[in-house]
Amino acid sequence: MKLKIAVLPGDGIGPEITVQAVKILKSIADRFDHDFHFEEAAVGATAIDQFNNPLPEATLDLCKESDAILFGAIGHPKYDNDPSAKIRPEQGLLRLRKELGLFANIRPVTTYSKLIEMSPLRPERIEGVDMVIYRELTGGIYFGEKSLNDEGTSATDVCTYSVMEIERIAHLAFKAAQKRRKKLTLVDKANVLETSRLWRKTVTAIAKQYPDIQLEFLFVDNAAMQMILNPKQFDVILTENLFGDILSDEASVISGSIGLLASASVGNKNTLFEPIHGSYPEAAGKGIANPLAAILSAAMLLDHFHLTEEAKAIRDAVEISIKLNICTQDINNEYHYSTEKVGDFLDGLI
Amino acid sequence: MKLKIAVLPGDGIGPEITVQAVKILKSIADRFDHDFHFEEAAVGATAIDQFNNPLPEATLDLCKESDAILFGAIGHPKYDNDPSAKIRPEQGLLRLRKELGLFANIRPVTTYSKLIEMSPLRPERIEGVDMVIYRELTGGIYFGEKSLNDEGTSATDVCTYSVMEIERIAHLAFKAAQKRRKKLTLVDKANVLETSRLWRKTVTAIAKQYPDIQLEFLFVDNAAMQMILNPKQFDVILTENLFGDILSDEASVISGSIGLLASASVGNKNTLFEPIHGSYPEAAGKGIANPLAAILSAAMLLDHFHLTEEAKAIRDAVEISIKLNICTQDINNEYHYSTEKVGDFLDGLI
Ligand SMILES: CC(C)[C@H](C(=O)O)[C@@H](O)C(=O)O
Ligand SMILES: CC(C)[C@H](C(=O)O)[C@@H](O)C(=O)O
Repeated sequence: MKLKIAVLPGDGIGPEITVQAVKILKSIADRFDHDFHFEEAAVGATAIDQFNNPLPEATLDLCKESDAILFGAIGHPKYDNDPSAKIRPEQGLLRLRKELGLFANIRPVTTYSKLIEMSPLRPERIEGVDMVIYRELTGGIYFGEKSLNDEGTSATDVCTYSVMEIERIAHLAFKAAQKRRKKLTLVDKANVLETSRLWRKTVTAIAKQYPDIQLEFLFVDNAAMQMILNPKQFDVILTENLFGDILSDEASVISGSIGLLASASVGNKNTLFEPIHGSYPEAAGKGIANPLAAILSAAMLLDHFHLTEEAKAIRDAVEISIKLNICTQDINNEYHYSTEKVGDFLDGLI
Repeated sequence: MKLKIAVLPGDGIGPEITVQAVKILKSIADRFDHDFHFEEAAVGATAIDQFNNPLPEATLDLCKESDAILFGAIGHPKYDNDPSAKIRPEQGLLRLRKELGLFANIRPVTTYSKLIEMSPLRPERIEGVDMVIYRELTGGIYFGEKSLNDEGTSATDVCTYSVMEIERIAHLAFKAAQKRRKKLTLVDKANVLETSRLWRKTVTAIAKQYPDIQLEFLFVDNAAMQMILNPKQFDVILTENLFGDILSDEASVISGSIGLLASASVGNKNTLFEPIHGSYPEAAGKGIANPLAAILSAAMLLDHFHLTEEAKAIRDAVEISIKLNICTQDINNEYHYSTEKVGDFLDGLI
């Protein structure tokens, strides 16, 4: 298969982990006789530094004409604590999601038996957890109007959802549930928010087309509790943008490390693959960043193009590295390996 | 001391737990020679059934003229799944908070050594957790304009914060931190939301008045993760309404049971005390509801009026009941006691 893959390393640890993912994808191409073409472009704080734009047009163009995008991470503390900054790295990612219409962010959460002991949760609560979070990604309060009054004394963010925005991701989530344990949990705050009530109404209506799926509702506060109390109850979780952001980071504790969680952001045409972790600037350049989430994002990329055997080769290699403890310090704090060493080890297994 | 206490039992398990809290407060009044006067009023689904209004004027009037309000719980599933319901139980609580200007909801989270084993988290992660969450309670997306277009195809919720709204609760939180471990963590989503940036800016400015306090910032997604990974890092958490709702429910898993967590909602004049758990309709009328959160809310009430010894008497009794396992089934699933039996046992210790 011929694939053009745009590589957007981004900020912080983004570049070092992306390099490892690309290396592995190249070995996959060799072994399985594919033709993967990689092209790199700037995004985030790095792009602001170079082009004064967190998403330069050249980057956007490259992404549009590529079959898939491999994304590193975004964000830099110098912008976080400057509430008056007009240009911020995150705008690059948000605009990319919006421009490409990447409306569904898919975040699987499972456990690795070797890592069960690392989770802050008791083993019996998490053994066998297998859920996937469908987070709406181009709507809600992230993209609503933002304003600050002239005196700077009052700020506003608007959260809007349309039936169409809810429907398109709901269909994806229901279809995913059909291939899994046939349960879908909608997380909202319908007892307070109008948008949540529209979600509940729309999803309830769509559910009629999926009679084999058991639909449940959970308020987001309760969901944040259930995620820890009894994560095994979840199969597919469907939720809006902000709730999905919070819940999927929370869910990452189940797997024992956020450094393991990959995601796919899908739209009608383009698809982007990225770790759910952030740019982790404190770790940048030290060779300690965990490349597994980036590498597992590459596996999701392969899955997306039905390269199932290839994706499995990556996941098997990841399993082995975890089993043998060939891992970075976040997972293996005794004899830890560098980002590159972990990548090389996996590469050797492909 | 003479106190007029409005009792609003509300829905679901609200009435049965509130009865126990009132019983204990009466014994406290007897033993310490106070004059507590209780008056009951309707709120929530119960009030809708009786008066077609989740917060009848009589209830609001009673609350206004009382020294304190003891609140049970609110909510009924028949409204949750009816997105077109015009009147909903929660409006009663929200309007009460707004009308009385209860702008700060204070939620302490600690552990009980006997219950450490019940928490889904590993003991070493939670032993010694001692945090308090300051949740803004009368602003943000809860109270912003809500709308649905005529065709019912698009819904909107508006989130607004003013500097004044942020300042008043921030001062309370900084002052609380001064009496504690001198650390304050502001939770926001300043990399995306304009309101969050106003929070960050305003709190940063106020921090100058509290040079003894160490101020940290955490994005809400990261906070949802840190709450489980390392809850001991937190002393005082300050956050806006919706984030506080989610995070405090999440934090409840630390204590081993949401049935133990009390809260105080304070304003300039009135103060309301309520468990953080919901109305738990499945359990209503069965005598299985845990009355401890309601009883500990009563202890917070006493603390508020500087009746420190009295509050301690309640907390000591709760400690004993937990130590001796005289508890409802959520805590003691072997030989569990009814709601009333637990209340009676505590009452006997006062
Ligand atoms: C960087 C940030 C804007 C982003 C988000 O909140 O969507 C990140 O947290 C994520 O979850 O992908
Ligand atoms: C009942 C509901 C409106 C309420 C809220 O979200 O504020 C509750 O969850 C709480 O936390 O007090």
